[in-house]
Amino acid sequence: MGHISHDTETSLCEDSRLHLPRGGPAARHSVGERVSGKKVLRPGCWKMLTVAMCVALLGCLRAQELGGHVSVILLGATGDLARKYLWQGLFQLYLDEAGQAYSFSFHGAALTSTKQGQEFIAKVMESLSCPEDVVPGRCAELKGQFQQLSGYHRLKTGEDYAALSTDIEARVQRQGVREAGRIFYFSVPPFAYADIARNINGSCRPDPGAWLRVVLEKPFGHDHLSAQQLAAELGSFFREEEMYRVDHYLGKQAVAQILPFRDQNRKALDGLWNRHHVERVEIIMKETVDAEGRTGFYEEYGVIRDVLQNHLTEVLTLVAMELPHNTSSPESMLQHKLRTFQALRGLQKGSAVLGQYQAYSEQVRREQQKPDTFHSRTPTFAGILVHIDNLRWEGVPFILMSGKALDERVGYVRILFRNQAYCAQNDKRWVAEQSQCLPRQIIFYIGHGELGGPAVLVSRNLFRPSLPPESWKELEGRPGLHLFGRPLSDYYAYGPVREQDAYSVLISRIFHGRKDSFITTENLLASWAFWTPLLDSLAHEVPRLYPGGAENGPLLDFEFRGAQLHFSQRQPEQLVPGPGPAPLPSDFQVLRATYRDSPLISAWPEELIAKLADDIEAAAVRAVRRVGTFHLALSGGSSPVALFQQLASGHFGFPWAHTHLWLVDERCVPLWDPESNFQGLQAHLLQHIRVPYYNVHPMPVHLHQRLCAAEDRGAQMYAGEISALVANSSFDLVLLGMGMDGHTASLFPHSPTGLDGEPLVVLTESPSGPQQRMSLSLPLINRARKVAVLVMGRVKREITMLVSRVGHEPKKWPISGVLPSSGQLVWYMDYEAFLG
Amino acid sequence: MGHISHDTETSLCEDSRLHLPRGGPAARHSVGERVSGKKVLRPGCWKMLTVAMCVALLGCLRAQELGGHVSVILLGATGDLARKYLWQGLFQLYLDEAGQAYSFSFHGAALTSTKQGQEFIAKVMESLSCPEDVVPGRCAELKGQFQQLSGYHRLKTGEDYAALSTDIEARVQRQGVREAGRIFYFSVPPFAYADIARNINGSCRPDPGAWLRVVLEKPFGHDHLSAQQLAAELGSFFREEEMYRVDHYLGKQAVAQILPFRDQNRKALDGLWNRHHVERVEIIMKETVDAEGRTGFYEEYGVIRDVLQNHLTEVLTLVAMELPHNTSSPESMLQHKLRTFQALRGLQKGSAVLGQYQAYSEQVRREQQKPDTFHSRTPTFAGILVHIDNLRWEGVPFILMSGKALDERVGYVRILFRNQAYCAQNDKRWVAEQSQCLPRQIIFYIGHGELGGPAVLVSRNLFRPSLPPESWKELEGRPGLHLFGRPLSDYYAYGPVREQDAYSVLISRIFHGRKDSFITTENLLASWAFWTPLLDSLAHEVPRLYPGGAENGPLLDFEFRGAQLHFSQRQPEQLVPGPGPAPLPSDFQVLRATYRDSPLISAWPEELIAKLADDIEAAAVRAVRRVGTFHLALSGGSSPVALFQQLASGHFGFPWAHTHLWLVDERCVPLWDPESNFQGLQAHLLQHIRVPYYNVHPMPVHLHQRLCAAEDRGAQMYAGEISALVANSSFDLVLLGMGMDGHTASLFPHSPTGLDGEPLVVLTESPSGPQQRMSLSLPLINRARKVAVLVMGRVKREITMLVSRVGHEPKKWPISGVLPSSGQLVWYMDYEAFLG
Repeated sequence: MGHISHDTETSLCEDSRLHLPRGGPAARHSVGERVSGKKVLRPGCWKMLTVAMCVALLGCLRAQELGGHVSVILLGATGDLARKYLWQGLFQLYLDEAGQAYSFSFHGAALTSTKQGQEFIAKVMESLSCPEDVVPGRCAELKGQFQQLSGYHRLKTGEDYAALSTDIEARVQRQGVREAGRIFYFSVPPFAYADIARNINGSCRPDPGAWLRVVLEKPFGHDHLSAQQLAAELGSFFREEEMYRVDHYLGKQAVAQILPFRDQNRKALDGLWNRHHVERVEIIMKETVDAEGRTGFYEEYGVIRDVLQNHLTEVLTLVAMELPHNTSSPESMLQHKLRTFQALRGLQKGSAVLGQYQAYSEQVRREQQKPDTFHSRTPTFAGILVHIDNLRWEGVPFILMSGKALDERVGYVRILFRNQAYCAQNDKRWVAEQSQCLPRQIIFYIGHGELGGPAVLVSRNLFRPSLPPESWKELEGRPGLHLFGRPLSDYYAYGPVREQDAYSVLISRIFHGRKDSFITTENLLASWAFWTPLLDSLAHEVPRLYPGGAENGPLLDFEFRGAQLHFSQRQPEQLVPGPGPAPLPSDFQVLRATYRDSPLISAWPEELIAKLADDIEAAAVRAVRRVGTFHLALSGGSSPVALFQQLASGHFGFPWAHTHLWLVDERCVPLWDPESNFQGLQAHLLQHIRVPYYNVHPMPVHLHQRLCAAEDRGAQMYAGEISALVANSSFDLVLLGMGMDGHTASLFPHSPTGLDGEPLVVLTESPSGPQQRMSLSLPLINRARKVAVLVMGRVKREITMLVSRVGHEPKKWPISGVLPSSGQLVWYMDYEAFLG
Repeated sequence: MGHISHDTETSLCEDSRLHLPRGGPAARHSVGERVSGKKVLRPGCWKMLTVAMCVALLGCLRAQELGGHVSVILLGATGDLARKYLWQGLFQLYLDEAGQAYSFSFHGAALTSTKQGQEFIAKVMESLSCPEDVVPGRCAELKGQFQQLSGYHRLKTGEDYAALSTDIEARVQRQGVREAGRIFYFSVPPFAYADIARNINGSCRPDPGAWLRVVLEKPFGHDHLSAQQLAAELGSFFREEEMYRVDHYLGKQAVAQILPFRDQNRKALDGLWNRHHVERVEIIMKETVDAEGRTGFYEEYGVIRDVLQNHLTEVLTLVAMELPHNTSSPESMLQHKLRTFQALRGLQKGSAVLGQYQAYSEQVRREQQKPDTFHSRTPTFAGILVHIDNLRWEGVPFILMSGKALDERVGYVRILFRNQAYCAQNDKRWVAEQSQCLPRQIIFYIGHGELGGPAVLVSRNLFRPSLPPESWKELEGRPGLHLFGRPLSDYYAYGPVREQDAYSVLISRIFHGRKDSFITTENLLASWAFWTPLLDSLAHEVPRLYPGGAENGPLLDFEFRGAQLHFSQRQPEQLVPGPGPAPLPSDFQVLRATYRDSPLISAWPEELIAKLADDIEAAAVRAVRRVGTFHLALSGGSSPVALFQQLASGHFGFPWAHTHLWLVDERCVPLWDPESNFQGLQAHLLQHIRVPYYNVHPMPVHLHQRLCAAEDRGAQMYAGEISALVANSSFDLVLLGMGMDGHTASLFPHSPTGLDGEPLVVLTESPSGPQQRMSLSLPLINRARKVAVLVMGRVKREITMLVSRVGHEPKKWPISGVLPSSGQLVWYMDYEAFLG
């Protein structure tokens, strides 16, 4: 058991003649303070002076109830993280906070033997460093004090925890103070969490009057499910407000400054911080090191789980979230953050580019004893394009990128503003502060890189930012230094008055109960919910290999088209043998044949959709030229979505203003139901083009506040609308699909309506829910000038085969009844549907 | 009369031993050739060689019908333009075309005496220059030949023209050839056009077998009306196909290359030439000279009429037009050009910034004998923002700028592409050909500037362009030369093999009947129709004064916000005394008072609209928080347009997805009628926000293909929809206006319906057309939770005064009946309406 000398629990300032009663009145500073960086850690003595003034002037009545003894238990005290950052952070906490209302004890804990543990701690104490302004002699004294408050405990069993608890209680009693709380810092691998949590909860909780804070380090799960499980498990031992999940990025000074900066520069940013002015946001963490020595962990996680899901996502929310009017409320901050997650557009396979440095697989083979044939698919580089579907950010690309073995070590958030100026003079005459044509950007420089430390940069042609002068100061000029394409002198550039390690910052915030600097369970799960589908879809993706360092050249540069990312350079030849690439769509031609005696067009999906879109546009142009309007009836479902996107993004000459859009069929749900075909049309097509409101003809499935009631005569109403607007009720083009049961439109096998007879529009029943539908009838469809049937995907293979062999049997196979009386029928099938 | 020696009408090549029968077979080259620049003017002999080969190989049967004698009559032959460019152009035409199927005669004409004219011509002949590759001796010979074909005619009366005609006919007869055609080049002021045209038409038309081409020089009118008049007048003498209106910019080599470039690089440009990839287009003509010596003309026209309406607009259409599949058809080119005009969004006062160099007024005073108190408002600088409302260009800013007394002389079209890449390496490692992050631009460098001549530049990271190698060659490196932010070496840079003057190019095109290089009447009127409303609205605008040259600094830099342009710098103090600036809106505060016992908010228009938009958003947020939806009823008319724009562009937090939009009133016209209130709502609001389709509630004024028929029960239907969706039929906010007769909504004085009684929605009659309306009733309006009445403009002053004094007299003053029973009424009036 560690030995703690109680009589040396002296105040840090006793020797500077500021004697205050132990546990006596102190100001309630820091707690609930704004996330402003205004208060940086000050030497304890200054604080005491403040306290003294506070006593003298204000009374500071509530201080007593806050004071007391705080025990910090560092679990995994002999580990790497603890050695590198945490002990130093605790020392800093002691320097900043001890000797006022609070007394401290620090308990290193691990599974290792007491002797080894004590030796470790002794070594750590040697390596601690004091703030710059402390003279060496004084520093040794302070380290000595801290050492005397620190000890080592081997914590293995419930008894060990109970003993620790007893030890703490005794210490508190001896000091004659109340116990304020206990901080358990989990610097251990996640598999150890459950045991430790159970032991703390079972044997080491403080008495109800004192608080418990458990500090958790990532990884917090491997995907959404495992994160949920872990959260549920922890939730069975701790209350939400007791858990402090660390993302150390939130302790980086430049990151911690994002929200205060947005708050303090509200006036200048108000009109700028939106899609009208922001061209792009880059959130970047580049490393030069590789994963050597850590491949065991890395092979499990990869760059997205290691960096993007947590650090870069947190930064993204800080940039994108709506700023609450009151930034000092952690609750409303968290709420706004969660709302940002809700607005994130789902990621797809195409939202990412992946890379792996060339030596990685060999390192894994060596370190993990894998056979020579082993090739890892774990990405060590990822570029991700994120879109946020709200009015503030719609259309603004958020680029997240991280990788190992890159050309430089640097982290930054760069907000680049659009150039919306024309400068009348030759660009040689432009001046940084005056010209709106020079790049305008705000950069939160997280660290490293050419600047070598954290900074906030604001282009001089934007505005002079306001930063808290006690913690941020203007940087000195560095002639010759260019950042983001401009000399440093083009920016208002600020650096911290005192650089602080992220862990020191966070340990202080834990002590002050600043929950908004940590990841809540909701926040964590929202982030995993966002990333997991992408991770799943990328599971079998082969990353592009890159040589590493400056030699990467432009190999990892990537571009976006709409929501799709791709590397700028085509895949070069494999640098080392790896799984071969799949054949590209362009390796095949569009195939022309016949199917059921009508023309068949077959191709890979992308080309098939492109061909269909071209054909529709050609039909539209012809119709508009001929009669001034184009009547297009569209089916719902998933296959047309790609078509809608193609039409929306690639067809500039499409005469939308003269096009009427009709529905082939509709589910009997309100138009705003996600199941509604109209809703799909709206989301994927209408939103992106300009069809006049009155040219859009949703089916009237929802009249008089009820759905498809026969007596509301919705079908007849739609038929009337068609008769009134479409010459001869002959659509220019009807787009159909084919169901696996041979249905088309919402005309199902053996339907009593719609397969023949007079009515143009009918109500039908689907064998699978939602049951009721409205549909164009076969006779109406067959009046069209052109009918296109789009069939895609392997699941359609069987029905495609089958229907190729049946005759005209619309009762059994409604699709077989599609035969325009004087128009043309064309089948569009992708290879998977057609060739299997 | 000029003397022309007929026996010297020798072919240019007789002395080079290539004898061909005069008027004999020749290839039908050039005519109908693509606008490709592929064929540049070649020395005549080469052409003859081609002709000879053609004779040998192909027969060239149709050549005979094309040959004959061509007479060129240069009207205003002694003027500046003629002296500087036109005679040289005619000489070039002679060098290129004479001695094949064609023979020529050139007739200088003017009002000046024969003697003086002949002397002038003799002097001009001296100054002509030959192509570089012609040795001096040969040049003198060629000039001698040309001189012998050229003469001077004083053309004043009808008889003079008749005599000229006789002279030409005699010459043709003597040569024993047919007459091919006559070119009349009008290098005279526009006031002289009508007389000359009448004389040509009356006395100097060639026989029907030959063509007539009249070449007209700008100005073609002063605005749309005068241009129409001029066009009508010319149209009474000439057929459209006979008129060649010159815009010499179309003869500039880089401008003439725009369409061929687009055509020949179709494949590379296909995916790029649209709003998804183009960030902006700049069309610029900067001059260093000022208007000194020309203020008589300039004071009448100003920079927009002088440069933008013609040169820059032509360039704009060349960049923006859809490229026809067949670019060799002048008709389809012209059609596509006209379609581009149709898609131009109308310009407003806010689409322009104007400047005037400081010395201008003084120059006008001096040259035009104006009093010392005279200050001109003629702009010598203009920046214009043009938007094109089609799917290809929507949202892409086209910036047009021209000015005198600027820092450099240069003309260019710059197409800047969006940066849609992220480059993974530090920017110091980017390489021009590889990095998609370096600027990507295509520049048609029209001339002058640092490059000193025409060029086509394509960033190396775009593609290697294809240009006709016989007329364009790669430029040599020019170390140290930077253009548009990048070294010249970053571009594929091409210059013409042989620089040609615009007039030489155009004269050749006139000869070849290439109508698509000239301005048709339709084209001209379309351009004036586009510019005239702006010119009208700017008539009383005071341009910003600028010192001239490099000293302008950033004074003329401008920025855009949506469709609005403004100078980047606030108006500095006047450099010389001028009309004082009007008080700025910010000089006044928003005023709060009461009006008719309800709160009144008054301010300058911009602030009033901002306040109202803020209030509406606040109401929306409250309503959505309270009950999940916000029901907003909006009035039509012009005042709300600014409100709609404000809501669309500045309110990111507006809960549109939960907002229902209703109409306060509607005209009984189809929804797509420009008069429809709904149409205004659609254009200014719906298009820019995301309200779900089913939350939009236009009034059903158009049922069963008829308008507001009582038996269609549209009003009752709308009332039913309101009752069904709006709790208590109590709108959250109703926005009203006030007519000059005291009407509100479409409730007019003494209306038999809507002022009281049960019905929620009624049909009414407007005392002014369009007569019939649908309107919410006063009782329904008064059920609203909040009613806002927006009153703007000086024209409302009287009714505002009057209504302030009347009691509750809804029959007489419907607006006086607006009194929400349990809601709130707020008046929003701008100062002009409220204070007069």
